[in-house]
Amino acid sequence: MSFANKLHKRILDVNSRVCLGIDPRPHMHPSTHPDQFEGDAAQVAKAVIQYFREIMEATQDLVACYKPQSAFFEAMGIPGLIALGQIIADAKSLGIPLILDAKRGDIGSTAEAYAGAYLTNTVFSADALTVNPYLGMDSLEPFIQAATVNDRGLFVLVKTSNPGSQDFQSLETLENMYVFDHVAYQIANTNRELSKGSYGPIGAVVGATHPAELEHLRDVMPQSIFLVPGYGAQGAAADDVVAAFDEEGLGAVVNSSRGLTYFDNPEQTAAQARQATTFMRDAINEAIGLY
Amino acid sequence: MSFANKLHKRILDVNSRVCLGIDPRPHMHPSTHPDQFEGDAAQVAKAVIQYFREIMEATQDLVACYKPQSAFFEAMGIPGLIALGQIIADAKSLGIPLILDAKRGDIGSTAEAYAGAYLTNTVFSADALTVNPYLGMDSLEPFIQAATVNDRGLFVLVKTSNPGSQDFQSLETLENMYVFDHVAYQIANTNRELSKGSYGPIGAVVGATHPAELEHLRDVMPQSIFLVPGYGAQGAAADDVVAAFDEEGLGAVVNSSRGLTYFDNPEQTAAQARQATTFMRDAINEAIGLY
Repeated sequence: MSFANKLHKRILDVNSRVCLGIDPRPHMHPSTHPDQFEGDAAQVAKAVIQYFREIMEATQDLVACYKPQSAFFEAMGIPGLIALGQIIADAKSLGIPLILDAKRGDIGSTAEAYAGAYLTNTVFSADALTVNPYLGMDSLEPFIQAATVNDRGLFVLVKTSNPGSQDFQSLETLENMYVFDHVAYQIANTNRELSKGSYGPIGAVVGATHPAELEHLRDVMPQSIFLVPGYGAQGAAADDVVAAFDEEGLGAVVNSSRGLTYFDNPEQTAAQARQATTFMRDAINEAIGLY
Repeated sequence: MSFANKLHKRILDVNSRVCLGIDPRPHMHPSTHPDQFEGDAAQVAKAVIQYFREIMEATQDLVACYKPQSAFFEAMGIPGLIALGQIIADAKSLGIPLILDAKRGDIGSTAEAYAGAYLTNTVFSADALTVNPYLGMDSLEPFIQAATVNDRGLFVLVKTSNPGSQDFQSLETLENMYVFDHVAYQIANTNRELSKGSYGPIGAVVGATHPAELEHLRDVMPQSIFLVPGYGAQGAAADDVVAAFDEEGLGAVVNSSRGLTYFDNPEQTAAQARQATTFMRDAINEAIGLY
């Protein structure tokens, strides 16, 4: 089954468009705090696995997918990467799609190596991977190839949620388009070739903090699933993400990380994760009229 | 000592501008071939460490720096990342600067996590890191901050060596500039603020396959060290990289990976690496008049 179909089936099964972001910050919870383990990185990493295992189990009927952020695991060294592999395995055990947010991008055989690392059956095997388009379409080709062959998905950065996305993504070109439009049209063309009429393997990252551009980009890329960051901590609300969805309430997932995984009361993480995720699920469903 | 000063001292000490790229491809040499170890990934990774240790020892008086490509290590899973840590340690033992080619890029606290992973004292601690600017200047800020505080360097992708670099990097904007020019001017401005008059912490990746743009970008970014890919396997020669250097023959290193590390005769890798690296060193020095 294609990644798009797998994700859509999951969205319909649980009636949720929430992507729960897994960004381990060991200092932010007593159970994972390095002081607890006298700085022993392997023990910290084990505690991180346990922390997110509880959250994943508590939210398993409430989320469309999980999205670990590779940076936070890489920052924990080898034990962190072992933890990433375990969290990927845990999501698989739960039968829940997983997007690895690693924003990789390179050329030729190097891009093939990244695609091999994340879009084939390895310890880091993800259902979908975020990728950066700056190097050009030939740099995306090995990822597209691997995604197509192995029923995986990609999410290409198109228009990100941060203020600095203005700097280069929103430069206006001589064609009277933004740079991100050029990326979007290329993705749309490639999806059309790969998957006539339905959602293709190439999704797009479009920030919830730019509702007008979200609506425009939905039109430009009708065959791309959107991964929408910026909800919650970054300031966007449910109404801001409505334009990401198609008429059937499909075609997008909305991410929140800190807001669904770290709480003021550290004693009741699982219950609070369940509550926050339910609230976000319902807010989005209500906004798109599917509540 | 700043990264720029450290690299320049090294260039002058050995009179070499060669960056030797470390891209492990276990299938390409009998001593690291997975069949040799019945697919045992840990054994393959150990053989890879040994393979590149021999090459690094054989070329230690001939290179300005080493540049492992993270993708190839990530593709080998956890044992591959342990090998990356070991190769980083080996370069440190030899006293040779190391650029980690990982092309990372993200926003806010995620960019901080990447900077923490690679530009502080960790198992993956590099003297410099390649980064992708698509997300904007605020996404580079945590990397710039870490590089400045910890005497490390960055190499921002500006104009890459692949044909697809035309797609987005070379779009022309309403200011009658290319997208890559916008990136270049921002880097130049930031370096000027950080390091008046001399080379700053923010280098640039500019492909050798575009000699005219290399010359132009050298003018735009007088305080950036250039990391120049595209030499050898990708078609560029010594004459094509001359424009990357300043009048003193400093300000750039030229990378070659496959051409310096994998050879037709697998029996004499160390000797062939030494010969190929000497030839490249001399060709570049001759082209810039410093032979």
